[in-house]
Amino acid sequence: MRAINLASPFPTVRRSTPAIAAARLLADQNLPGLIVLDDAGRPWTVLPGTQVLRMAIPSYCQEDPTLARVIDEPAADVFITGLGDRSVEQCLDPDQRDVPVVDPDATLLEIAALMATEHAPVVAVLNPDGTLRGAITVDALLDRVFQQ
Amino acid sequence: MRAINLASPFPTVRRSTPAIAAARLLADQNLPGLIVLDDAGRPWTVLPGTQVLRMAIPSYCQEDPTLARVIDEPAADVFITGLGDRSVEQCLDPDQRDVPVVDPDATLLEIAALMATEHAPVVAVLNPDGTLRGAITVDALLDRVFQQ
Repeated sequence: MRAINLASPFPTVRRSTPAIAAARLLADQNLPGLIVLDDAGRPWTVLPGTQVLRMAIPSYCQEDPTLARVIDEPAADVFITGLGDRSVEQCLDPDQRDVPVVDPDATLLEIAALMATEHAPVVAVLNPDGTLRGAITVDALLDRVFQQ
Repeated sequence: MRAINLASPFPTVRRSTPAIAAARLLADQNLPGLIVLDDAGRPWTVLPGTQVLRMAIPSYCQEDPTLARVIDEPAADVFITGLGDRSVEQCLDPDQRDVPVVDPDATLLEIAALMATEHAPVVAVLNPDGTLRGAITVDALLDRVFQQ
């Protein structure tokens, strides 16, 4: 089994994509995150759902999540509007790491080793020109391991 | 919206569950991990898929994932057998953190704040006796945010 046979189309966003659109895309999928492309269309990093939440909630709730309790239920339900007009780039953690990448020939073990060492639930598969061919999630990888 | 309305049944394992059974359970679901219960049935930690992979692959591949390339494709395809008879507990990272928990009354904002600050894609909802009532994933939370 090679990466080329495991890679699936994967939702992507750009740095300039509105964060609220990214959040909506995440809600529509069941994925660990979205791949963020750079201006040349190459995979740059992964935007996890938890990072989108981070930008939406008031900063005092991040310092102490129990303070979120002072907000009443109707206001709490619409917290996502706190994203305002921020872009995906403004949501990223400054320590955000590059998305792990493999070439189409990588074996199942190579992909698994990369996921394990990077604690990465998503690995990008590149075309020869460095653009995104598709991606593999740890869930898809485990599916194939047990289908054999 | 309160945690009680968002919590779903969630697959759990015990510390002593064979890691291979946990990997198979992860493959059957589309979840960020499994909740590991302690001996009293209380949620203890989350076992992510990447951590299961970590135990299955040879240690030299973890030090340098490119070394996985020396294993030919048929052998690479069956790497999961490397789990042997290890238990879930033996797969856990020594720095593994407790699973974040909320009570059934927690609001959407409280849950989101906890996910964001802990970088946690899963939050456990407890019964009054400390046992697991259910769990909420970041994906389920975003689904509900946009359904309102």
